[in-house]
Amino acid sequence: MRLRPSRFWALALAAAWISTATAQPDPLPSWNDGPAKRAIVAFVTDVTREGSPDFIPSPERIATFDNDGTLWIEQPIYVQFAFALARVRELAPLHPDWKDRQPFKAVLDRDMEALAAAGEQGAAEIVAATHAGMTPEAFRQIVRDWLATARHPRFDRPYEELVYQPMLEVLAYMRAHGFKTFIVSGGGIEFMRAFAEKRYGIPPEQVVGSSIVTKFETRDGRSVLFRLPHVNFVDDGVGKPAGIEQQIGRRPVAAFGNSDGDLQMLQWTTEAGGRRLGVVVHHTDAEREYAYDRQSKVGRLDKALETAATDRWTVIDMKRDWKTVFPFERSLVAHPPIKPGMPDP
Amino acid sequence: MRLRPSRFWALALAAAWISTATAQPDPLPSWNDGPAKRAIVAFVTDVTREGSPDFIPSPERIATFDNDGTLWIEQPIYVQFAFALARVRELAPLHPDWKDRQPFKAVLDRDMEALAAAGEQGAAEIVAATHAGMTPEAFRQIVRDWLATARHPRFDRPYEELVYQPMLEVLAYMRAHGFKTFIVSGGGIEFMRAFAEKRYGIPPEQVVGSSIVTKFETRDGRSVLFRLPHVNFVDDGVGKPAGIEQQIGRRPVAAFGNSDGDLQMLQWTTEAGGRRLGVVVHHTDAEREYAYDRQSKVGRLDKALETAATDRWTVIDMKRDWKTVFPFERSLVAHPPIKPGMPDP
Repeated sequence: MRLRPSRFWALALAAAWISTATAQPDPLPSWNDGPAKRAIVAFVTDVTREGSPDFIPSPERIATFDNDGTLWIEQPIYVQFAFALARVRELAPLHPDWKDRQPFKAVLDRDMEALAAAGEQGAAEIVAATHAGMTPEAFRQIVRDWLATARHPRFDRPYEELVYQPMLEVLAYMRAHGFKTFIVSGGGIEFMRAFAEKRYGIPPEQVVGSSIVTKFETRDGRSVLFRLPHVNFVDDGVGKPAGIEQQIGRRPVAAFGNSDGDLQMLQWTTEAGGRRLGVVVHHTDAEREYAYDRQSKVGRLDKALETAATDRWTVIDMKRDWKTVFPFERSLVAHPPIKPGMPDP
Repeated sequence: MRLRPSRFWALALAAAWISTATAQPDPLPSWNDGPAKRAIVAFVTDVTREGSPDFIPSPERIATFDNDGTLWIEQPIYVQFAFALARVRELAPLHPDWKDRQPFKAVLDRDMEALAAAGEQGAAEIVAATHAGMTPEAFRQIVRDWLATARHPRFDRPYEELVYQPMLEVLAYMRAHGFKTFIVSGGGIEFMRAFAEKRYGIPPEQVVGSSIVTKFETRDGRSVLFRLPHVNFVDDGVGKPAGIEQQIGRRPVAAFGNSDGDLQMLQWTTEAGGRRLGVVVHHTDAEREYAYDRQSKVGRLDKALETAATDRWTVIDMKRDWKTVFPFERSLVAHPPIKPGMPDP
């Protein structure tokens, strides 16, 4: 049968409409089909389908994500540590004594051995000198200004481009299914708030992190908050479940991490009973990113990798599971960029 | 002209449809028309209308509400204090020494003078004995069990019925206009979380309050959080802006309080520049609720009432502005009950 043109077009349009209406676009296009992707999709599907025995009501769909090494790069040193070192160098002219005083001398001499020798006390002094003494707004602006110009030593790109495309897709996918996504990180809470909303679609009120003390004062009749050089809370290891309780007040139903600092968060999340999801990002790709685990000084993954096996957490093998690692790789392949998704309303 | 019946019905239906489509149901039916209601409606209208010079994007629409005396009753004593006293009495058989030991003896003897004499140290001991030594989940359950049976001494009703109907309407109204509503209270964070979602539609992650230290432990191979008898944070007075920064990470654009403990939160909110809303609930209705301000031991309102005049905050005169005070009064009048509104998604 030969169709009249008008009939032909009507059918073609109907076919296109049906195909649009029924095609399920892959929510995780940067993932290779494999056990990790399937575990994430199965979890989201099972807990969000009305009538499912695993159904979790929307308000309880709390998903927590570590930041360094889980949402963005953490090698060769934590981004926030790179920021602190750069800030010491920037502030050095105001502190002539630093060139003879540890740990600052080590930073200025780029003497990583002496810096390591300064230990936790040295790190605390660097944090005090670079993270305190201003308002939170001013601090976030300093971080944004630095992020706008600093570049990763190996990839020679701004750090904000070194977020993991597959994880941006997971964030957007889970939010589209009624999850509230939180960062729960050992990193500084205000440091992360400087870019989390723009980069991950995670608003400031959904960022849990380590903090220094913030004090309210009235100066010249105006209210100000001021960052003091005293540790308030360390949101790492055993601190993560405590930080979650303090700021979220609910036990998560899904948690994503990549190091032993995430062990307790993963345990706290998955031991609750009911369908739960624990995910560990295993950095196995020295070519596209880095390969490290048990012996790494940054992002050491040992106990949590062992526990993943016994507690049946999903381990992402970066080399096997991720089709692309960074968003900029997507311009090289034949599919359109994925936005990080609208923030939670 | 005489209409045929079918024509008549078509017109009647159209008229009904138009009337439904154009009628703006009053979002604040429990408020008398007056300056307070008009100020709240004008603010919400002006900051949410696209193209308005006062427009505030939805993610920045953070509204903070004190709890005691702002969302529910706080006289003759804070509800949480009533809970603590009841809990001392309940636990007394396990602590035979309490009948001879202050401040517990004062509680058991109902000797309010001796209790007052025990001061802050006494209050801290009562908090330690009644609020610590269990998991947060267990604590919230203890609170819920108490709320289910305890009754207010004057109104002889459960405390959860003594929330302010006009404020439930404000919460729902603001949420319907893209605001995220937070409690920011000197009260205990976990105490409030026990009922805030059900009663106010405010989820646990949007409750900021005072807290004791919570510690993560592994017991018999299981993860537990445990409440310790040490103060972690006091979310009152100068603590409120600091608590807001820690947990929300944005400066609110609207704040509601009722006492001097809310002064700094109101200043922090309204001094930021741009269109802002500061609201003070003034308890002026001894007949339907209570009348108190400058001299009150509970919910003292002195400096904040003064500042309201100079800083142009909206003062709610409870007697003048609220048509109904409590939700149960609504069954006596001729309009349907208002639900507290869906929680923020």
